[in-house]
Amino acid sequence: MQSIKAYQDVIRQALTQFHFPEEPSNLYKPINYLLNIGGKRIRPSLTLLAADMFGAEVSSALPSALAIEVFHNFSLMHDDIMDKAPLRRGHDTVHEKWNANTAILSGDFMLIHSYTLLAKNPPELIAPLLEVFNKTAAEVCIGQQLDMDYEKTQDVTINDYVEMIRLKTAVLIGTALQLGAMVAHAEKSQTELIYQYGVNLGIAFQLQDDLLDAYGDPLKFGKQPGGDILENKKTYLLLKTLELANEEDQREIISWLQQTEYDPSKKIDAIMRIYDKLKIKEYINDEIREYTHRAFQALDEIALTKEKKVPLLQLSNELLNRTK
Amino acid sequence: MQSIKAYQDVIRQALTQFHFPEEPSNLYKPINYLLNIGGKRIRPSLTLLAADMFGAEVSSALPSALAIEVFHNFSLMHDDIMDKAPLRRGHDTVHEKWNANTAILSGDFMLIHSYTLLAKNPPELIAPLLEVFNKTAAEVCIGQQLDMDYEKTQDVTINDYVEMIRLKTAVLIGTALQLGAMVAHAEKSQTELIYQYGVNLGIAFQLQDDLLDAYGDPLKFGKQPGGDILENKKTYLLLKTLELANEEDQREIISWLQQTEYDPSKKIDAIMRIYDKLKIKEYINDEIREYTHRAFQALDEIALTKEKKVPLLQLSNELLNRTK
Repeated sequence: MQSIKAYQDVIRQALTQFHFPEEPSNLYKPINYLLNIGGKRIRPSLTLLAADMFGAEVSSALPSALAIEVFHNFSLMHDDIMDKAPLRRGHDTVHEKWNANTAILSGDFMLIHSYTLLAKNPPELIAPLLEVFNKTAAEVCIGQQLDMDYEKTQDVTINDYVEMIRLKTAVLIGTALQLGAMVAHAEKSQTELIYQYGVNLGIAFQLQDDLLDAYGDPLKFGKQPGGDILENKKTYLLLKTLELANEEDQREIISWLQQTEYDPSKKIDAIMRIYDKLKIKEYINDEIREYTHRAFQALDEIALTKEKKVPLLQLSNELLNRTK
Repeated sequence: MQSIKAYQDVIRQALTQFHFPEEPSNLYKPINYLLNIGGKRIRPSLTLLAADMFGAEVSSALPSALAIEVFHNFSLMHDDIMDKAPLRRGHDTVHEKWNANTAILSGDFMLIHSYTLLAKNPPELIAPLLEVFNKTAAEVCIGQQLDMDYEKTQDVTINDYVEMIRLKTAVLIGTALQLGAMVAHAEKSQTELIYQYGVNLGIAFQLQDDLLDAYGDPLKFGKQPGGDILENKKTYLLLKTLELANEEDQREIISWLQQTEYDPSKKIDAIMRIYDKLKIKEYINDEIREYTHRAFQALDEIALTKEKKVPLLQLSNELLNRTK
C-alpha cells in the first residue's frame, strides 16, 4: 500500500503515454490540451488505491482509473461551455481557446473514449463495471442539470442542494473507488461500502469548498475569500442563512442579491456579518463532520485490516484538513 | 422473417414505452421531444432484422436496437447545434426550442443512455457488443469533425469525401446490422459480412442523397432540387466536377461559390449545366452501383439461405430505387 502521491504518479505517467492520432487535429488537440494542463488526478488515483487495498495489482486498475479521469475531463469540458467559464486550472477553457463546437465534439469523443478505456478490462468484469459506470455517468448529468436549474430559482432547500452536489460531484468519487475494488474482485458488499465512503467524503469535501470560499485564509487559500458571495452562488452557507434569517436580514440579503452595482468588499462584509450572526460556520462544520462520520463508518465496516485502510484514512484527513 | 415495416412497428411500439422520470424536466423533456417527432427508425429496424435473419427472437435484439436509435438521436441533437440547424424532421431543433446548453446536456445524457440500453444485453454478450459500439461511436464523431473541417477548406478529394460519409453515416448502418447478428450469436465472419453490407449500402445511400438533391423530381422529392448547390455543399457532384472541369468551368464554379448575392435559380442552372456537360450524373451513378455491388457481394457471402436474405434484398432495393 502506498500513499496517494505514488498513485498520482502512476496516473501522470500513464497519461503521458496516451496518444491520439494526429488527425483530425481539431478533434484530438483540445483533448490532449485539457488532459495536460494539470489537475490533481485524485479520482483515478482513488481507483488505483482501492484496487491495491483489495489486493489487486495496481496496473490492473489502470483502464478503469483512466476511464474515470477521461470521463471527469469530458464533464469539465462540457460544463465549462454551459457555465461560460473562461478558465480551467488557470488556463483558457477549450471553448475559449477554440470554440463551443470544438468543445462539444471533443467532449463527446472523450465521453465515448471513457467507455473505450473501460472496455479494456477483462471480459468477465465488463458487464458489472459498465453497470456502475453508466449509473454514475447519468447521475453526473442530472447533477449538472440541477445545478443549472437551481441558479434560476429561489426555491432551493438545503436537501436539494446536498442532493445536487451528491450527484454532480460525490458519486464520481464513490465510483472511482468502487471500480478499483471491483477490479480487485472484492465482494459486492465491500465495493458498496467503499462507494459509500467515497460519496460521503465527496459531499463533505464539497461542503468544505463552500466553507473555504467564505472563511479560507486568503494567504493559504490562494485567493480572496467571498467569490461565491459575489456570484450569488446558492451554497450551503447562503441557503442555510436564508433558512434561518429573520425578516430584516432576509430583506438585506435579497437586496444584495439583486443589486448589480456595488462595492464588492461591502457586499462580502454585509453577507458575512449575517453568516457570523447566525453562526453559519458552525452549522456547516456540523454538516461536514456528519458526512465525514458517515464516510468513516463505511470505511470501518470494510472487512480489511486497519493497516490496509491507512492510505484512505490519510487521504481523508488531508482532504478535510486542507486550507485550500 | 418479416418486411422492414414490421420491425419499424416493433421499434415504434418500444419507444412509446420508453419513460424517463419527470424531473429534472429540463434534461428529459428535450430527449422525449426529439425521440417523438418522428424518424423512419431504419437503423434500429436493421438490428431487429439482422437478429431475426440469424435466428434469434426479435425481442432479444431490442436493447441493442434502442441503443443504436438513442445514439443516432444523440448525434443529431449535437450535430444540429454545431450546424446551427433550425429544423429537424420538420420541427424545431432542441437548441432552437430550448437553448444550446440544454441540447448539450440532454445529448450527453442520451449518449450515456445508449450505453445503459446496450448494458441490458446478457452479460456474456456485453464485452463484444461494447467493443463494436465504441469503435463506431468514435468514428461517427470523427466523421462529424471531418465534415466540419471540409466546409472550411478547398482541399477535399473524392476519397476524403467518401471516407467522411463512411464514418459519419455508413458505419452506424453497418453496426446496427452487426449488433443484431451478434445478439443472434452469429459467427464473427458472418457479423463482419453483414457489417460490410451495411457500410457499403450506407455509402451508396448517402451518394444517392447527393444525386437526388440535384436530380430528384421535385414532385416526388418533396422539395426543389439544388439545395446543396445553394449551400455550397462539397458533395460528390461538386467535388467530381471540380476534379474534371476545364479552367474556364472551374473559374465559373468558384465565382458562384464566392458570390453572396445572386438569383438562386440562376446559380442552380449554371452549376447544373456544368454537371450535365461533364456527365457527373453518370459518374455518381457508377459510384452508387459500385458500393451497391460491394454490399450485395458481402450479402452473397453470408452463409444463410437465399430466402433468409430476402428482407435485406428488398430493403436495399427500396432504398436504392427511392425517388425521395
